[in-house]
Amino acid sequence: MPVYKAPVDDSLFVLFDVLKMEGYGNLPGFADAPRDLVEAVVTEGAKLCEEVLQPLNLSGDAKGCHRNDDGTVTTPPGFREAYKQYCEGGWMGLSFDPAYGGQGLPAALHAIIGEYMSSANLAWGMYPGLTQGAMAALHVHASDAIKDTYLPKMVSGEWTGTMNLTEPHCGTDLGMLRSKAVPNGDGSYAITGQKIFISAGEHDMSENIVHLVLARIEGAPGGTKGISLFVVPKFLPNADGSIGERNPVSCGKIEEKMGIHGNATCVMNYDGAKGWLVGEENKGLAAMFVMMNEARLSVGIQGLSQSEVAYQNAVAYAKDRLQGRSLSGPKAPEKPADPIIVHPDVRRNLMTLRAINEAGRALVIWTALQADVLHRSEDAAERQKAEDHLGLMTPIIKGVLTDLGFDNAVKAQQMFGGHGYIDEWGMGQFVRDARITMIYEGANGIQALDLVGRKLPANGGRAVMAFFNEAGTFCAQNKDDATVGPMVASLSKGLKDLQAATMWFMQNALAKPDNAGAGSTPYMHMFGLVAMGYMLARMAKVAGEKLGNGADDRMTAKIATARFFFEQMMPETGAHLARISAGADSMMALPAEAF
Amino acid sequence: MPVYKAPVDDSLFVLFDVLKMEGYGNLPGFADAPRDLVEAVVTEGAKLCEEVLQPLNLSGDAKGCHRNDDGTVTTPPGFREAYKQYCEGGWMGLSFDPAYGGQGLPAALHAIIGEYMSSANLAWGMYPGLTQGAMAALHVHASDAIKDTYLPKMVSGEWTGTMNLTEPHCGTDLGMLRSKAVPNGDGSYAITGQKIFISAGEHDMSENIVHLVLARIEGAPGGTKGISLFVVPKFLPNADGSIGERNPVSCGKIEEKMGIHGNATCVMNYDGAKGWLVGEENKGLAAMFVMMNEARLSVGIQGLSQSEVAYQNAVAYAKDRLQGRSLSGPKAPEKPADPIIVHPDVRRNLMTLRAINEAGRALVIWTALQADVLHRSEDAAERQKAEDHLGLMTPIIKGVLTDLGFDNAVKAQQMFGGHGYIDEWGMGQFVRDARITMIYEGANGIQALDLVGRKLPANGGRAVMAFFNEAGTFCAQNKDDATVGPMVASLSKGLKDLQAATMWFMQNALAKPDNAGAGSTPYMHMFGLVAMGYMLARMAKVAGEKLGNGADDRMTAKIATARFFFEQMMPETGAHLARISAGADSMMALPAEAF
Repeated sequence: MPVYKAPVDDSLFVLFDVLKMEGYGNLPGFADAPRDLVEAVVTEGAKLCEEVLQPLNLSGDAKGCHRNDDGTVTTPPGFREAYKQYCEGGWMGLSFDPAYGGQGLPAALHAIIGEYMSSANLAWGMYPGLTQGAMAALHVHASDAIKDTYLPKMVSGEWTGTMNLTEPHCGTDLGMLRSKAVPNGDGSYAITGQKIFISAGEHDMSENIVHLVLARIEGAPGGTKGISLFVVPKFLPNADGSIGERNPVSCGKIEEKMGIHGNATCVMNYDGAKGWLVGEENKGLAAMFVMMNEARLSVGIQGLSQSEVAYQNAVAYAKDRLQGRSLSGPKAPEKPADPIIVHPDVRRNLMTLRAINEAGRALVIWTALQADVLHRSEDAAERQKAEDHLGLMTPIIKGVLTDLGFDNAVKAQQMFGGHGYIDEWGMGQFVRDARITMIYEGANGIQALDLVGRKLPANGGRAVMAFFNEAGTFCAQNKDDATVGPMVASLSKGLKDLQAATMWFMQNALAKPDNAGAGSTPYMHMFGLVAMGYMLARMAKVAGEKLGNGADDRMTAKIATARFFFEQMMPETGAHLARISAGADSMMALPAEAF
Repeated sequence: MPVYKAPVDDSLFVLFDVLKMEGYGNLPGFADAPRDLVEAVVTEGAKLCEEVLQPLNLSGDAKGCHRNDDGTVTTPPGFREAYKQYCEGGWMGLSFDPAYGGQGLPAALHAIIGEYMSSANLAWGMYPGLTQGAMAALHVHASDAIKDTYLPKMVSGEWTGTMNLTEPHCGTDLGMLRSKAVPNGDGSYAITGQKIFISAGEHDMSENIVHLVLARIEGAPGGTKGISLFVVPKFLPNADGSIGERNPVSCGKIEEKMGIHGNATCVMNYDGAKGWLVGEENKGLAAMFVMMNEARLSVGIQGLSQSEVAYQNAVAYAKDRLQGRSLSGPKAPEKPADPIIVHPDVRRNLMTLRAINEAGRALVIWTALQADVLHRSEDAAERQKAEDHLGLMTPIIKGVLTDLGFDNAVKAQQMFGGHGYIDEWGMGQFVRDARITMIYEGANGIQALDLVGRKLPANGGRAVMAFFNEAGTFCAQNKDDATVGPMVASLSKGLKDLQAATMWFMQNALAKPDNAGAGSTPYMHMFGLVAMGYMLARMAKVAGEKLGNGADDRMTAKIATARFFFEQMMPETGAHLARISAGADSMMALPAEAF
């Protein structure tokens, strides 16, 4: 049976020692979150994940979800009960607006617990995760009447949420969507169409399901400019908040898929279902993007989460499994063989996962804090900076942490040899579950295009220049630091490569946009390496300072982990720069028929 | 439903135009294989794969194998019938010794058909594949009596084979194995023990199953020096070749695993089963290595095969799926969107797969021809050169083509967006099936260690020097070639990096063996890149010459594909060199408890 222990100490190290959370005390909600409260909340969340959610992960994968003949869906044994516990603990509204029953705590805490939850049980975590995304979209764009009706029920967890974008013929290109909305004359609309890949579209965990649905109002323009967002509940709410009439929206099928078997991925059929407009007519895509950006960060965290839990299990196995002898002589001569953790190639994999997990966690918490600044600060300049950071880092966190999360789950599985391929060890599940994170909420190729095509040039490159300045300043200030000096040399080289690639796009992509598309994925990964390297260097710097106050094994390990990253992973930026600068020609040379 | 068309033209191009098969006419069996016969055989094999095996792939995955209460195993519907057709076509003995009923055709043909078979149905192909490995081991090491009893039945396919190495506590480290053999006094032994992960260990496709089993004869030394190889049939053969008494060897369980569901992965229990020694006492590992080396090449081919079939399906989807518009303006303005093959990032993935498939195919056929030379040539110097080549390339083909085969299946799946995650599209199966190829027949980390620790230093580096000389000579001769000159610059740089890494090992691994282990995986991949690059450059050279005789779209595409590889993939060697030269310190810094 797989194991999992939430990395509470590391989350707190990042939050307090590296990112200095106390410095955000001026933001609403932060004053209510002193260190002891944060520690208590995070520790309690960790406990729920370790003791309730994780034990349901392997069985949830094996049992899966089932659609019954009446269209209802049964989730795996234990999922309902775990959800009840989650709601009773008030976790759904942890960082949500207190006006609707939330606790208003920093979003950074939500991000931290989100990692633990997905590590423990990714498929389960999607039910509350989608609800929180829907809550965010309604909070920003819905009318007060809708907010008052839906949000308290969602914050309490009595009602869950979904997002309905994809149709059989369109995913990325939503301009082609066909679902239509016809005004009923009473302010509501009749929604008709088919949506696919709807996670948590139907299930037995909540009394009502609140679908956020993109559809085209009759007569609206074609393309993305004619899309509106609607709230379409499974049961129509009565005035007193109880649930009323069944709305004609139903699950036609559950997909048989590679992983996340514990989550019901539904084909949803809307047969004139009653819905209400959220935000303005034909501005649905912008409204949905609130949910999508929230979801993209969550999916990046899911990637990190699978890497972390896979790492923990690989470590346990590598310490336990006896096989072969160390190349430098037996390390456990009293045993028939050494534990495989003595082998450098096993170490290479473990250290790779460890470095990425620590770097990814810091990047996520840093970015979540910027989300808090964006949503809570009264200082417009601060908000703009935070918004720039979020815009820039969202595709990187989504694209890079999920690509690496999957790769890392594969590496961890590999350490188990043949046992890794057998279901009962659980390593294959991490791989299969991680796989979807590269695909949903915008496939990673789309994240890369978003980065290069939108985020990079936005506002004259303001966001990217701010990052370059910040990382460059760190390098300049620390190049002679006893601990991080040698790492800074590698970080500076990575940063230089990244700046050269950025410059190359400026000079070569305007005249020939295919050059931007051709280099987008290498650029995203290069940016990810530099951003992760910056995080690791900052952590190593703090660790070095702490070591000045006395020995601390955890801090020594922090520095060793960062060093591994700079020696083994950062050199990749040079190869990426070469790829990018080679341009699109070799990719586009063949006519389509030649394939 | 997934599609598959065997790349017959490309195989023949490699065999005849690049590797000049006619030049091997002096070898036995080659004179019987003029071009028209080879074309006929390959085309016929392709047909069997496309029309019989491929249609059973998706259903075989869904249905899987079932162990019945009586210990028998039922394979997926259609598998038995397909096997019958395969045997009737004489495919089992295609390149096997005519003395036992084989056709004696070149092993290169066997390798070519092997690729098609695994592309069409990897799980199915393992049944004959293991039989052929067992045939090879018996042919080299067994007594005439055993060969006469077993080989004709195996060549005809009436009896299938297996290899039994792994036990629950030992896989890589076979020195720990516990299965024991007690002499019966009549020349046979009683074999007792448990073997796990036995592919095709029990099934309903043949009337008998011939297990090759590693066990320790009572009183033999511990470790690898006390291991012997036995042939243990499911049914004891009668003197007339019919099957007799049931031997007490049985399938205790079928593993639930991530993929290759169509193949029965068995726990095999030997309860005093009667077996006969193959080769000498205590020399079983060496005898089994005949089978393992054969199997490692086959597994490398399996990696290639999944990349190829995944590529073909991704191409079909990319031409068909309409989504978004080209960055350089609409390419199909009459349609609601462009096919996604217009997008450079999609092209990047397609070209990556294409380049690796073409390079891998050439590398495999080149190496299979060397196997023919090794086994058939009368010239000792030629044989030695071929043996060096095989020894060097076996871990590279196994390790690199399976790592890339898996990566490529993932890339192909990614192009399908959400549809790639749904079982019915079949892309997940390619990923899950490819995954095992990185693990079995020696996990890829073991291949890398074999390369760096054994193959590289063997005979004073003779094998690696021969490769460096050959590739270096090609570069020197073609640096000004109009077609391949620019590619040669990149190949030379890759070769230089590879030589520098080799030198680094010579200087740094003897005193500190962990340095070899630490750099082994990057080195294996670096070597793979250079070897594939060399193949692509040779093919591009031939293509350039052919284009001198007139336009040829296939040859133009060959050159474009090679160019993509050199621009986009070869730069990785620089990063690998940096990783290797950083040494083991950062990997080994942490004590095991710190993980």
